[in-house]
Amino acid sequence: MRAAKYIGGGRVEVGEADAQAPAAGEVSIRVAFNGICGTDLHIVQGHMDARVDMPATIGHEMSGVIEAVGDGVDLAVGAPVTVMPLRWCGSCAACAAGHQHICQRLDFVGIDSPGALQELWTVPASIVVPLPEGLSLQHAALVEPLAVAVHDVRRSRLATGETAVVIGGGPIGQLIAVVARATGATVILAEPDAARRDFAAQQGAIVVDPIEGDLAAVVEERTAGAGADVVFEVAGTRGTALDATRHARTRGRVVFVAIHPEPVPVDLHRIFWRELEVLGARVYEREDFERAIELLAAGQVPADALITRVVPLDATMEAFEALLSAAAMKILVDVQGVGA
Amino acid sequence: MRAAKYIGGGRVEVGEADAQAPAAGEVSIRVAFNGICGTDLHIVQGHMDARVDMPATIGHEMSGVIEAVGDGVDLAVGAPVTVMPLRWCGSCAACAAGHQHICQRLDFVGIDSPGALQELWTVPASIVVPLPEGLSLQHAALVEPLAVAVHDVRRSRLATGETAVVIGGGPIGQLIAVVARATGATVILAEPDAARRDFAAQQGAIVVDPIEGDLAAVVEERTAGAGADVVFEVAGTRGTALDATRHARTRGRVVFVAIHPEPVPVDLHRIFWRELEVLGARVYEREDFERAIELLAAGQVPADALITRVVPLDATMEAFEALLSAAAMKILVDVQGVGA
Ligand SMILES: [Zn+2]
Ligand SMILES: [Zn+2]
Ligand SMILES: [Zn+2]
Ligand SMILES: [Zn+2]
Repeated sequence: MRAAKYIGGGRVEVGEADAQAPAAGEVSIRVAFNGICGTDLHIVQGHMDARVDMPATIGHEMSGVIEAVGDGVDLAVGAPVTVMPLRWCGSCAACAAGHQHICQRLDFVGIDSPGALQELWTVPASIVVPLPEGLSLQHAALVEPLAVAVHDVRRSRLATGETAVVIGGGPIGQLIAVVARATGATVILAEPDAARRDFAAQQGAIVVDPIEGDLAAVVEERTAGAGADVVFEVAGTRGTALDATRHARTRGRVVFVAIHPEPVPVDLHRIFWRELEVLGARVYEREDFERAIELLAAGQVPADALITRVVPLDATMEAFEALLSAAAMKILVDVQGVGA
Repeated sequence: MRAAKYIGGGRVEVGEADAQAPAAGEVSIRVAFNGICGTDLHIVQGHMDARVDMPATIGHEMSGVIEAVGDGVDLAVGAPVTVMPLRWCGSCAACAAGHQHICQRLDFVGIDSPGALQELWTVPASIVVPLPEGLSLQHAALVEPLAVAVHDVRRSRLATGETAVVIGGGPIGQLIAVVARATGATVILAEPDAARRDFAAQQGAIVVDPIEGDLAAVVEERTAGAGADVVFEVAGTRGTALDATRHARTRGRVVFVAIHPEPVPVDLHRIFWRELEVLGARVYEREDFERAIELLAAGQVPADALITRVVPLDATMEAFEALLSAAAMKILVDVQGVGA
């Protein structure tokens, strides 16, 4: 079979690899599609060389069909599935407290162990999530990033009738906006790129250009001076991190979704003054995966519009180059696809 | 009657003032004791001259006895009382949402309007809180600062059997530690001053010198590597603000109690990684006042030990000077007391 491997130096190589037969409790999946995300880009740019074991088969946003099962596995060959790419230790303090998804020794499959950019992928059956009939495998490759957004929204306790501000209209910001809308909330999305604003507007968000416009004024006006119930900071700049707390009402919730590797200034006075809640949210739990599948299956996610392009496995490197050079939303690799 | 007034230039003057008869819905209180706090110190140091209306009768941590009541007031002359020094507008977005204590037009009585450093103080009956029999008026002067601590602990959802880290052993830190202990939590208090550490240790806290010792190691050891359920950052330095998130377990709660007028660097990565919750907490609600009274009446607060000194009204300026020069816990002004 063929596999795409990050070999260091900014390069991904596609070549032959040995398929691994499923052991007891394991499943072999014929991978259909695999989406490329910001984390994969970081890996290929060399930012995570200390963490990944090269040559590394990456990929963690996937869909596929069960090819073979090991002993004791209660899943049918031929069933469409995705994978929740988290493996936890089961014994650390986080696991003991029931927070397995943020296990202190978490194995993020596709980063810390081999991922889905290979024709046949063998994983523990415990992390396989069945897909419903009628959900296309292309759309199903969006389950993982959508589950991130579902988890962010769930952590925020956003409710029907509330107002959410989403700062940043990249793929995750758009997915958060979609989930927030599906939750019954009004969404105000701030994004400097006009095409991304249009995308959000088509999904029912009120959009603001934070450069030319005045996000604070829009939030004030739309909430009768109260401020938003929830703010999602997805842009990840020092400016947006500092500003995020300003848009929340008294006792409002702020989720810093974007990752800031270094400490950045935060307006603790505003958090104090309005008794805000800042909530950390990382990856997802099984219920977030299930909810993401539900939303996709119900047609509540603009999946086709989000998928900018699909490239065959051989062209995986082109997918990375395209993501680096343009504002694509989501590029999928057709793992069984041949030639460009 | 006599009153102490902040007249600017770092000075407090004690002189004659007119007593104000209670109008309908008002109460006149013969003030017994008034504690001096950090906010009062800020005022007298001139840091809040833009906010206070000079000459300003300050003071908001008090106890006293009802001297006279206006029409329609259901409180008895002679009853011992304290005052919850908050007046809200009732119509702003915060009030409408039920968060009157952080009203967007809050009048903090004793800062924004006249306070308790006068022999007879007239206030709306609605902010008067009756005291139970058997609670001394000296101890009752601690209700307001204790209510701050009760509110901080309530916001943190600290529960019996949990572990709380308190960073900073000044008056508020000690009161938080006391309330946390009364809640049934294990308390680890970090404080560089040996006398303050001793104070906390006598109240049952595990104490750490953060300069000579290793707070993180103690927290790790005491929580079997998990981290604390709740962290209260009361010291208010850039270093402690940055460090606070580090001591919390996965899904732990962090309350930034100390006020940071300017944004300071916060470890958003840690908040993300462990899915922490950061909670703002400001002043108190009526139930916090009631709980503070209960704790004092039940003898669960080391009130005598916390009251470093009592000075007569004439010596109010000396109280400020003493607080500025030494690490006193709480100095009370005996408002009816004459001459030193
Ligand atoms: Zn991803
Ligand atoms: Zn674990
Ligand atoms: Zn005070
Ligand atoms: Zn109000």
